[in-house]
Amino acid sequence: MKLVSVSDQQFASDNYAGICPEAWSAMEMANSGHAAAYGNDYWTQRSSDCFRTLFNKEDCEVFFVFNGTAANSLALASLCQSYHSVICSDFAHIETDECGAPEFFSNGSKLLVANTRDGKLTPAAIREIANKRKDIHFPKPRVVTITQPTETGLVYTVDEIKAISEACRELNLRLHMDGARFANACASLGCEPADMTWKAGVDVLCFGGTKNGMAVGEAIIFFNRELAEDFDYRCKQAGQLASKMRFLSAPWIGMLESGTWLKNANHANSAARRLASQIEDLPNVALMFPVNANAVFLEAPEAVLSHLREKGWNFYTFIGGGARFMFSWDASLERVDVLAADIRECALVGQV
Amino acid sequence: MKLVSVSDQQFASDNYAGICPEAWSAMEMANSGHAAAYGNDYWTQRSSDCFRTLFNKEDCEVFFVFNGTAANSLALASLCQSYHSVICSDFAHIETDECGAPEFFSNGSKLLVANTRDGKLTPAAIREIANKRKDIHFPKPRVVTITQPTETGLVYTVDEIKAISEACRELNLRLHMDGARFANACASLGCEPADMTWKAGVDVLCFGGTKNGMAVGEAIIFFNRELAEDFDYRCKQAGQLASKMRFLSAPWIGMLESGTWLKNANHANSAARRLASQIEDLPNVALMFPVNANAVFLEAPEAVLSHLREKGWNFYTFIGGGARFMFSWDASLERVDVLAADIRECALVGQV
Amino acid sequence: MKLVSVSDQQFASDNYAGICPEAWSAMEMANSGHAAAYGNDYWTQRSSDCFRTLFNKEDCEVFFVFNGTAANSLALASLCQSYHSVICSDFAHIETDECGAPEFFSNGSKLLVANTRDGKLTPAAIREIANKRKDIHFPKPRVVTITQPTETGLVYTVDEIKAISEACRELNLRLHMDGARFANACASLGCEPADMTWKAGVDVLCFGGTKNGMAVGEAIIFFNRELAEDFDYRCKQAGQLASKMRFLSAPWIGMLESGTWLKNANHANSAARRLASQIEDLPNVALMFPVNANAVFLEAPEAVLSHLREKGWNFYTFIGGGARFMFSWDASLERVDVLAADIRECALVGQV
Amino acid sequence: MKLVSVSDQQFASDNYAGICPEAWSAMEMANSGHAAAYGNDYWTQRSSDCFRTLFNKEDCEVFFVFNGTAANSLALASLCQSYHSVICSDFAHIETDECGAPEFFSNGSKLLVANTRDGKLTPAAIREIANKRKDIHFPKPRVVTITQPTETGLVYTVDEIKAISEACRELNLRLHMDGARFANACASLGCEPADMTWKAGVDVLCFGGTKNGMAVGEAIIFFNRELAEDFDYRCKQAGQLASKMRFLSAPWIGMLESGTWLKNANHANSAARRLASQIEDLPNVALMFPVNANAVFLEAPEAVLSHLREKGWNFYTFIGGGARFMFSWDASLERVDVLAADIRECALVGQV
Repeated sequence: MKLVSVSDQQFASDNYAGICPEAWSAMEMANSGHAAAYGNDYWTQRSSDCFRTLFNKEDCEVFFVFNGTAANSLALASLCQSYHSVICSDFAHIETDECGAPEFFSNGSKLLVANTRDGKLTPAAIREIANKRKDIHFPKPRVVTITQPTETGLVYTVDEIKAISEACRELNLRLHMDGARFANACASLGCEPADMTWKAGVDVLCFGGTKNGMAVGEAIIFFNRELAEDFDYRCKQAGQLASKMRFLSAPWIGMLESGTWLKNANHANSAARRLASQIEDLPNVALMFPVNANAVFLEAPEAVLSHLREKGWNFYTFIGGGARFMFSWDASLERVDVLAADIRECALVGQV
Repeated sequence: MKLVSVSDQQFASDNYAGICPEAWSAMEMANSGHAAAYGNDYWTQRSSDCFRTLFNKEDCEVFFVFNGTAANSLALASLCQSYHSVICSDFAHIETDECGAPEFFSNGSKLLVANTRDGKLTPAAIREIANKRKDIHFPKPRVVTITQPTETGLVYTVDEIKAISEACRELNLRLHMDGARFANACASLGCEPADMTWKAGVDVLCFGGTKNGMAVGEAIIFFNRELAEDFDYRCKQAGQLASKMRFLSAPWIGMLESGTWLKNANHANSAARRLASQIEDLPNVALMFPVNANAVFLEAPEAVLSHLREKGWNFYTFIGGGARFMFSWDASLERVDVLAADIRECALVGQV
Repeated sequence: MKLVSVSDQQFASDNYAGICPEAWSAMEMANSGHAAAYGNDYWTQRSSDCFRTLFNKEDCEVFFVFNGTAANSLALASLCQSYHSVICSDFAHIETDECGAPEFFSNGSKLLVANTRDGKLTPAAIREIANKRKDIHFPKPRVVTITQPTETGLVYTVDEIKAISEACRELNLRLHMDGARFANACASLGCEPADMTWKAGVDVLCFGGTKNGMAVGEAIIFFNRELAEDFDYRCKQAGQLASKMRFLSAPWIGMLESGTWLKNANHANSAARRLASQIEDLPNVALMFPVNANAVFLEAPEAVLSHLREKGWNFYTFIGGGARFMFSWDASLERVDVLAADIRECALVGQV
Repeated sequence: MKLVSVSDQQFASDNYAGICPEAWSAMEMANSGHAAAYGNDYWTQRSSDCFRTLFNKEDCEVFFVFNGTAANSLALASLCQSYHSVICSDFAHIETDECGAPEFFSNGSKLLVANTRDGKLTPAAIREIANKRKDIHFPKPRVVTITQPTETGLVYTVDEIKAISEACRELNLRLHMDGARFANACASLGCEPADMTWKAGVDVLCFGGTKNGMAVGEAIIFFNRELAEDFDYRCKQAGQLASKMRFLSAPWIGMLESGTWLKNANHANSAARRLASQIEDLPNVALMFPVNANAVFLEAPEAVLSHLREKGWNFYTFIGGGARFMFSWDASLERVDVLAADIRECALVGQV
């Protein structure tokens, strides 16, 4: 009744999944006796070092906060003032799904939204927005944020990120990366985390743990230490400093030291590809975007989607006839196949 | 090395303790398969109902947030506007230890701090502050907040709370209760949660889970539903809506259904009383406040405290020679006895 | 040198004009001896009453603030919380020219921008935006703001406003009117101020004084007194309470009691019509919007505009080849004719 | 009736006075023809240069805002972040009379209030507060603000300011001066403005125009240009950018070029000394603070103050029996003598 068995898995969101065994074990390991509060503990030190190792960068600062909304908003607020603005894509989660959190944390920084075809920002779009207004009657652009992978399931190549960061330097803008599904991007590109971030010019990364298999928690990584000045105060004031910090930090040890972060991401990505490969030949149904990561967006007639819902599938829909499927670290491949078969059936019925 | 064994327990903070078995099991139970995100799940519904049952009140609203700083700040912000003010005691955690969070979440509400002898607000102090200024050049008082038990380890009696809430009604002020250690107060008074809260005139309660034995998480309970209007939006915008909400809510089921919340509090309280009873006859050392809950505050010459530190004990100190000991749900009574013996030894040495 | 004589008047902005004689005299009259500070003076009382008379409404609240940005932002902030949103047109001054002030004063309320052809909001556009999202991941719509006349120089008819306010009631939205050039709209419609505001369902009006001929200052009028609760505190906290208030309020007496507010607006509107009438037959040049108030927007080839600039004319331009001319209370009709002749000349040259 | 003639002058506030002739004339001079908006005009440039000349410093930035609350709050907000704190005295206007404006503009910066005997901050008090807390649970001190002259009518000597600024440098704090009555301090010390400000280590000064004889307006002067980065955006967003800026800036030309700023201050100061000298020998009545500037604070039995009120005098009172008299640029010396005689009479009556 209350438990959703594997045979009932839905793919509406990768937030539906639970905690992966490695994160769970690390939490269990940390739940042994007493430890100092507020991050002055062994586990937090060790997990911070895990990130330094992962990114092959000693001089970076790592902070652990509760969720992605806070991670993104705090990071952006640290990069600009209230009268500055943040350039993002029209699909950006900070614009579409954070209920004004970036504006709240920054006390009013405006999001300047680029219209994009697929959720990917480009140097051209950034330049156009940054150069549009140069007067004090409009918030001064100060930060660019990109989501890697994008909310549409696309992955920026390292070269694309470099091109964006070059535009940023030229325009005196900071570069933030919303990595709510950062692991999925790494798995997709097969590159080192460093290549996709600080070596490509990213100033601050929000690395998502929740969707990667943890219960809660995101890491904020400042590759430029100066930008992190007093960021610990900022987290504390904003209600994002955990007293029993070890339970927020230790799971990362389980994820990072064992390579689980990448394993989980690879699994989720392959589930997405598995679905895509089974339906790409269908009439009536088309992929809205290439499947780079763990999301599949389908364009289909409303009748098709409606049939699919009747068969018991949940999914987010888009205006004009799109459906989103998002795969988690524990996506059942059997269920993926069932979904694929159901889509096929609905599509063919829709065709008639 | 990294693990703190029972024989090494410190009593500097009740945040040093880990997760209690009942909270852990509930989390484990919830970590089964998939569940809807953002609180639309079985566990969150069930834990909300646990609170309704515990408080014997059907028409109340329950919200789960990550920590106490956020719980208090969000609740206070919902009760006033930026140009209003909040009356609190000079020992109030929101004033002394939340890094300006209440001002941040409310966009500027001022805390009007009553000087108290022991951390307890009184109707007289509230009236004095509320009536001091009536002009628009000073923020208009709108809320009173009391901490139950206080940061000094005292517990307001039900009658004291009623007297405060009467003053609030008279002055058109809302009443908020910071219950970071709410369970300890209930255990101390031996009364029903309802008696100490909505039946006594409390509008909003922040019920602390972390210090009570959970990994993370506090519940905000609005006894007056109108005050909770759009509070879910407020939480979301402020980065306090967990995507995998079940891991924030399910532990409460483990705590509340089994009575663990009270058992844990009783244990912590008895550890505090145990320490107090062993040292109250000592020369040189005096209790700063009666031991109502799980805290013991000692007044002692700096030499005594210094000896105690040399013996390896950690504790927070106060200007003028005070030391705080705070006991958790898993405080080792053997360690309490060792601490008592060490205090005795230091006190006698200090005397010479 | 430093003074701009009439023969040098530019029509880039109606903010270029100075103080009209009636406002000046009222200020002079008020500058006699001492008066109580912060609005507790004769002049402020009298000017507030002028508004009550003008709007034929005794039970309304009037506040005087320094400028339009503050007036709009404070009014909007009083109508919503940070996690709410404000529906406006894509030409709205609060979106395009207030540097994020609405977001700043409200601590994060998002502006939901309707794409419009001409700057006018419609019930349909409001309904579409208000109904688009109903989940807590997006700020809840709470206010609609319309600019009367619009930034494009159009005037909503009374029926149009009524239709908008009906949509607002239906959707549980408040209705705010940015009346930076409110007088010009009244002059254009020839209706009573009451008809266009509270009788048509407007909750709060920002009535602009600066562009109407004053040195500084806007009035905020709450037609619903409950909405004005503690608004005086809000103004004070936001740095918008003048100590020598009489110099902000008295000019309104000069404007309103004598009918100057309407006279000035009529003059400005007629200057705009005068320009329009002289150029509407031109090839190469077209009116972008009907001339309802004191603005004229011209569409013309860049070569034409460029010639016009070379002739010494200043004006704001729009992407794609638009030019804005805005006429003040003291616009020189001779200069308008010179401008018209110059446009004619440039247009004909451009044609060849 | 509505006008307060000289023979009715009250000395409750220096905000009761009107506009001095020199400010008026300058405003009149500026009200000639058209001028560019938002400060891009001749008058604003010239008045900025007046300040550069007055302070003998070319490389400083000058901004004109509407009132003192905004000036102080914007300046402080530019010197710290929301999780920082501002050290001030317990008499500081920002703490006692700005309705939480500093917290609002800064989005939550806490004021750390030093208890003082007389409103004057000292290096010792600053050090004590700055060193009290060094943990992230309390806002980090970042700015010191002093009011010159203090709200108690005292003037810091140049050496006192230097000692304070040395403490600031040592503690990595910025130094802000609230100069709502800056001219009165200059008149009192007889020193150059530069000596009392940037040469003594002040980073930012808010120079008050309103109490000095203007209708409205304060100047914010950044002696360190780097601190002024994007401050124009900050003013705009906060509703403090006047469109017809010349009417805010030109009066300063009238005040500064002619030396009126100092003449007005000297007059006000001498009125205060005149009152003090006539009552210092009285029994029952004592000066609460030395009369350095334009304020006189009297300590007297409530019966005496009550008699004085019955004679028709208005004044602010303090808990414990204090009365404040504050003299403006146009204080009538005859009225001062009448007040002195009335105080004498009341004091002697009170004695019997």
